[in-house]
Amino acid sequence: MPDIGIGLVGGGYMGKAHAVALSAVGAVFDTPLRPRLEMLAASTPESARRHARAFGFSRAAADWQALVADPKVGAVVIASPQNTHRGIAEAAFSLGKPVFCEKPLGASMEDAMAMVAAARASGVVNMVGFNYVRTPATQFARRLIASGEIGQITWFRGEHTEDFLADPTLPANWRTSGMANGTMGDLAPHIINASLALMGPIASVMGVYETVHTSRPEGVVTNDDHAQFMCRFENGAMGQIYASRIATGRKMGYAYEITGTKGAIRFDQEDQNALWLYEMTGPEATRGFRKILTGPAHPDYLPFCQGPGHGTGYQDQIIIEARDFLRAIETGEAIWPTFRDGHDVNRVIAAVIASSDQGAWCDISSV
Amino acid sequence: MPDIGIGLVGGGYMGKAHAVALSAVGAVFDTPLRPRLEMLAASTPESARRHARAFGFSRAAADWQALVADPKVGAVVIASPQNTHRGIAEAAFSLGKPVFCEKPLGASMEDAMAMVAAARASGVVNMVGFNYVRTPATQFARRLIASGEIGQITWFRGEHTEDFLADPTLPANWRTSGMANGTMGDLAPHIINASLALMGPIASVMGVYETVHTSRPEGVVTNDDHAQFMCRFENGAMGQIYASRIATGRKMGYAYEITGTKGAIRFDQEDQNALWLYEMTGPEATRGFRKILTGPAHPDYLPFCQGPGHGTGYQDQIIIEARDFLRAIETGEAIWPTFRDGHDVNRVIAAVIASSDQGAWCDISSV
Amino acid sequence: MPDIGIGLVGGGYMGKAHAVALSAVGAVFDTPLRPRLEMLAASTPESARRHARAFGFSRAAADWQALVADPKVGAVVIASPQNTHRGIAEAAFSLGKPVFCEKPLGASMEDAMAMVAAARASGVVNMVGFNYVRTPATQFARRLIASGEIGQITWFRGEHTEDFLADPTLPANWRTSGMANGTMGDLAPHIINASLALMGPIASVMGVYETVHTSRPEGVVTNDDHAQFMCRFENGAMGQIYASRIATGRKMGYAYEITGTKGAIRFDQEDQNALWLYEMTGPEATRGFRKILTGPAHPDYLPFCQGPGHGTGYQDQIIIEARDFLRAIETGEAIWPTFRDGHDVNRVIAAVIASSDQGAWCDISSV
Amino acid sequence: MPDIGIGLVGGGYMGKAHAVALSAVGAVFDTPLRPRLEMLAASTPESARRHARAFGFSRAAADWQALVADPKVGAVVIASPQNTHRGIAEAAFSLGKPVFCEKPLGASMEDAMAMVAAARASGVVNMVGFNYVRTPATQFARRLIASGEIGQITWFRGEHTEDFLADPTLPANWRTSGMANGTMGDLAPHIINASLALMGPIASVMGVYETVHTSRPEGVVTNDDHAQFMCRFENGAMGQIYASRIATGRKMGYAYEITGTKGAIRFDQEDQNALWLYEMTGPEATRGFRKILTGPAHPDYLPFCQGPGHGTGYQDQIIIEARDFLRAIETGEAIWPTFRDGHDVNRVIAAVIASSDQGAWCDISSV
Repeated sequence: MPDIGIGLVGGGYMGKAHAVALSAVGAVFDTPLRPRLEMLAASTPESARRHARAFGFSRAAADWQALVADPKVGAVVIASPQNTHRGIAEAAFSLGKPVFCEKPLGASMEDAMAMVAAARASGVVNMVGFNYVRTPATQFARRLIASGEIGQITWFRGEHTEDFLADPTLPANWRTSGMANGTMGDLAPHIINASLALMGPIASVMGVYETVHTSRPEGVVTNDDHAQFMCRFENGAMGQIYASRIATGRKMGYAYEITGTKGAIRFDQEDQNALWLYEMTGPEATRGFRKILTGPAHPDYLPFCQGPGHGTGYQDQIIIEARDFLRAIETGEAIWPTFRDGHDVNRVIAAVIASSDQGAWCDISSV
Repeated sequence: MPDIGIGLVGGGYMGKAHAVALSAVGAVFDTPLRPRLEMLAASTPESARRHARAFGFSRAAADWQALVADPKVGAVVIASPQNTHRGIAEAAFSLGKPVFCEKPLGASMEDAMAMVAAARASGVVNMVGFNYVRTPATQFARRLIASGEIGQITWFRGEHTEDFLADPTLPANWRTSGMANGTMGDLAPHIINASLALMGPIASVMGVYETVHTSRPEGVVTNDDHAQFMCRFENGAMGQIYASRIATGRKMGYAYEITGTKGAIRFDQEDQNALWLYEMTGPEATRGFRKILTGPAHPDYLPFCQGPGHGTGYQDQIIIEARDFLRAIETGEAIWPTFRDGHDVNRVIAAVIASSDQGAWCDISSV
Repeated sequence: MPDIGIGLVGGGYMGKAHAVALSAVGAVFDTPLRPRLEMLAASTPESARRHARAFGFSRAAADWQALVADPKVGAVVIASPQNTHRGIAEAAFSLGKPVFCEKPLGASMEDAMAMVAAARASGVVNMVGFNYVRTPATQFARRLIASGEIGQITWFRGEHTEDFLADPTLPANWRTSGMANGTMGDLAPHIINASLALMGPIASVMGVYETVHTSRPEGVVTNDDHAQFMCRFENGAMGQIYASRIATGRKMGYAYEITGTKGAIRFDQEDQNALWLYEMTGPEATRGFRKILTGPAHPDYLPFCQGPGHGTGYQDQIIIEARDFLRAIETGEAIWPTFRDGHDVNRVIAAVIASSDQGAWCDISSV
Repeated sequence: MPDIGIGLVGGGYMGKAHAVALSAVGAVFDTPLRPRLEMLAASTPESARRHARAFGFSRAAADWQALVADPKVGAVVIASPQNTHRGIAEAAFSLGKPVFCEKPLGASMEDAMAMVAAARASGVVNMVGFNYVRTPATQFARRLIASGEIGQITWFRGEHTEDFLADPTLPANWRTSGMANGTMGDLAPHIINASLALMGPIASVMGVYETVHTSRPEGVVTNDDHAQFMCRFENGAMGQIYASRIATGRKMGYAYEITGTKGAIRFDQEDQNALWLYEMTGPEATRGFRKILTGPAHPDYLPFCQGPGHGTGYQDQIIIEARDFLRAIETGEAIWPTFRDGHDVNRVIAAVIASSDQGAWCDISSV
């Protein structure tokens, strides 16, 4: 069975998630191309050795440069801090090696644009990791909308809300500092990506963001706690989006509501195995939002789950990403979401910031 | 037992709701002052006679002028078309008779301001009917927020969404014409009233509204189908509000989510007997949104309902309004919401319209 | 407009509920026959006077005998303690006066049988008050089942669970003494009535009941805290029923699930404005339980509620009972549930007790 | 890093689930002992080769005898048809090899007892696979109950309901024949296992089961479609259990409700990442069932999921089983559930059958 050596950069949370996914994906999907856990790079050689051993990689790299250059590494998975994304990707592309990069694409709009350009120039497979959009429920929602099942879309409301910084007595840390993105860079990209995947391109935005708790024990906070914006999609629908890391009580509030002229859809990642669908058909007396439990009848429901209702979880989304990356490498075809799609998310964010600064609507095309 | 003669103007839907409430309120609350269903006026004398008989009023009036002037009519309830509100109220105030007026206060900002002025000049009891805010759940939410139970408020999201015009094949009618308000005048006032009742005054807004289905069978549509706006409350919190009459699948989507630094509240009128409360207390492992069923422990749970969970409905909200109106008359004290409160809602709407026209944020104080 | 003088026996919780309903029903339904609140009897003449005044009745009776005999009293509503039901009903029937009696029909099987016999002998209108079954949701469920919408029924699960005695530190009182029914007499009748209304007759049962907290502060407990039974319906379906007053966290757990070969229904009175319906139609991928919000499209949705989702509550069920009682009087036709239907509930309870005592299945026909 | 060669018997649905779990478990938990996918046996050598290759096992066995005997196979995972369980387990035990066996333990009570005896005689690690009980929610429920958080337990209701045979037009197949268990052998064991895990031993039962659709296209049905029973637990609580494969609309209705004197718990596997907890503490007005989203604060929430609400799924439960099996092998300690625990489930089932046959309560101790 053909295989390909995977080089993983990053031994943290997302690195581990990808390591597990790469370990399992072959058995799950009986993929024609199998991933070989070849090499791992981390912040230090020691850390790389420790994680390579724990995650089941054959070798540890001294640094990412060595990993990218290693002849047995055929493809690169980037799960390192965002300021390293661009360099790693450009190096891999220059060697013609496929790249899977965690979101956000780069540390800045400029980085992201450069990465898209490098990907295009190389002609090599490139993907970006927006995992939440991978649930069977959301993939089914995309299909329902695309097929016209709920008619012409008139309204979209989305949010990505969590509460990990809701308590104002939590101390300042690297997440609240200039080293990290605020909510606009951390959470908003997920729900913006969902909105683009479900609705198509955004035409214009008008938003506002702020740091609610500007000072915390042990320091000041220099990035945003929450952000909202109104938008107009190219398909004509209006929308409303909110992202927050201070949404008390919300643990994984990646949620959306979509209204069409023939039906409506509601979803909340906190109950990720359900999609709510309303259809304007049949007698009025029997209409209502239907709670559909995802199962084999839906896209990307993992095949070892024979029946509906068994339930997929977070890690299953990462396994789907691994499958798509392998398939793209095997066939050479671009599989959504590519770097270009990741870049589109960044443009929306840039436009929201511009609209907030100017107190007026901002066209995406102007960014 | 002392009583007061009620003159009801309007034999339609809301007129009936108030007639039922006035019939029941005495037995429900054992009110010291009892309403006497004295006289009813409608669009024609014939209609007035028919409805007076059906609703149990002693007499029918030739017109509202006769009703207001009738010496046995001690208080006036206005449930007629909004363009008649001002005239009736001014006439009643000039005779020193208390007035309960259905929302919206008048047909225009100008009308509403005149009504507030007339009420103030007369010194007579005046109330406006925002019934949805009367549920035990919402009244309890107000109390929780006021007492600091969920800490400093950082975010408010509200909506009033229904779908009675969601189907684009429904013909144009009086509701879609200049004779009526669009969503901004019909549904938005309810959720704006809720936001003010829960959060306090709004400082500034930035919104947009539109007619999605500009042409329908049998005519063009000249008022708005849906509207959204971002806002800043005087307490510092940001907010997001949406109103729609084309929200497919939503029947009574009067709903809000309020985030505080110590907790959060969620409510949806479609399950009006429940309030969801999250408190940032106790071990993390046992935290979660709690579904509280309203009962005797909550404000304005009707007293014939001995236990929690029995459930109150739409009509019960109108009965509470009747109780408060009687109590205000009896004591002479202003009881929320007065005409002034109704006017505050109108100002927010005017500001949203201004912000939409100008494409920029609008201060409420400038309206 | 023709009216009828109502004599109400009982000034307590249910007496008040009926007084309010009788005050409102005319305006709500524009009933051809209007109730006139003529006379009220209570435990003492003083209590009768106080409640007559509070509830808006014209006169107070010295005792129920005087009320029943009064020539201006045309129909009797019984809301007094259950050991008085039989005497009042028999007296009214002997004078040819219609009777509405609160559940349970009598204090014993013998009483209930005597009441059914007296009603039959008199040929007079008689009804029994199982209010919870009156919601639009449950009435719609009955219709769905009767029309074959969910196919042949194979399973029924019902419960009536509350928690008013869940705390074992609550003192013993009249409710836990021989003066009152335990759960089998208090709560079980409601859900048994629902099961009969939805499924038709029960053929046999096998149950068990017990007093969990046999001693409480201030006394011993002599009636049952909870009870369960398995059953077979005459339509062939199996079922499972549970009633409890110690169901911690349950406030109005009047709930059922019904499985058919083509669909299924779920209901919980704690969200009484929703009915959940699953239909085995359409593509598997879009199937799910649908949350139907009751509205004008459903039976007995109160007519002053113009749209779906406005919500009906506990008192609205009592208004429906009042309407049906008036209609039965006007037309002379028996309207469900009659005393006979109330008696059927009592027979099931007797059979459950017998099965528990014998540790074996008991046929209803043997009771 | 030390490893152990795993021999997997079975290439079907559950075989695959275990293969995936064994591939991932090392990276997920950084287990000290790592599984080595050594050998796979299936119904034929050809099938074994195909599945070994697909699942990533090094070698295929000619039959399970060869697999068990292979010196490089250090532990055996049984995921083959139930009539093969006993032979494989006895062979493995005789060689001192640890065994993980899918439920049900054997094809009969006799088989299961023999397997328990063989396990005990060998002194070797043995476990049985009741995966659903592995969710963080259910493991947390066990902990809450054990710690007395909800007080003394008074009531348990459990069900395992699915609808894969709800449609009576589905043809008869092996599942409806004597080759397979009916609902009593297929679904009931899961919820009985849950009841034992949560509540402790069952003392006595009274049940009934039946084949509702005795004839289907292409044949007659010889095993049961659904079953219910009442029970008494040794801790004194009463309970009610139901299992069905014809529960229209239910996809994974593994659900329970547990009432205690201080609180209550509700769970439904269809939303497996939530546990509902009611606590009889704090002011009545703020009490309610709390929807707790499982996260790092709960047992067995997979460690690559850093925050609450990310969600675990079906496969994650199998990974937990793999971890526990490895840990048991490493330490030599019995880890729940052992064969003995699996046998306890079988005894309850036997007692339910006996009680149904006799129409009377049956003590578990008599089975």
